[in-house]
Amino acid sequence: MDEALKLAMLFDLYGGLLTDKQREIFEFYHNDDLSLGEIAQNLGISRQGVRDALVHAEATLRETESSLKFLSEHERRSGLLRGLKENIMALRRAGFEKQNPELSAILKDLESKIDTLRAL
Amino acid sequence: MDEALKLAMLFDLYGGLLTDKQREIFEFYHNDDLSLGEIAQNLGISRQGVRDALVHAEATLRETESSLKFLSEHERRSGLLRGLKENIMALRRAGFEKQNPELSAILKDLESKIDTLRAL
Repeated sequence: MDEALKLAMLFDLYGGLLTDKQREIFEFYHNDDLSLGEIAQNLGISRQGVRDALVHAEATLRETESSLKFLSEHERRSGLLRGLKENIMALRRAGFEKQNPELSAILKDLESKIDTLRAL
Repeated sequence: MDEALKLAMLFDLYGGLLTDKQREIFEFYHNDDLSLGEIAQNLGISRQGVRDALVHAEATLRETESSLKFLSEHERRSGLLRGLKENIMALRRAGFEKQNPELSAILKDLESKIDTLRAL
């Protein structure tokens, strides 16, 4: 996985463990693409302070993943859910649902739960 | 949810964030049902030291859930996966798979992925 994407996913998962200040700086830098100097000016702190906050935030995110492994679990779950969605699409393509309203209702229900799980 | 069960689930999720010593003491106390005195004797530390480790471990587990909410997400996901499993069982009960080998193969595949997701 691309490192920037991985860091963004770690932030989504574990951002709640950072301080408010770390979260703010992380988002300025990674989401809003501001420079260290711009963030320092915005927050009235030193450029080095901004850099330290980013280094610590990233370390916390990576160390937490190394202990908890939720990102790798999330990846595995996403792959399985994508597979479930493909199974449903295969059933639709084969036209089974058209043959039977009961089957059609259950498939709709299956698909809606799978979509909810994918959005979690 | 029962508090002891909740604590056990928090330990499963976030135990990786505790120190080795905290984990060991937590398991002696909660899984092996040893007393504070027995654990103190086993580890050659004071009874108060055991109590402190348990208090800190439990606080870490609860604070982490309060920041990350993975347990409540896990509960929600479990409910949806239980629902998917019920959908598959309804399809089996209705006898659809017997009518068509292709449908039967896809249902087997769906069910196996759902079982894997439930075990994650």
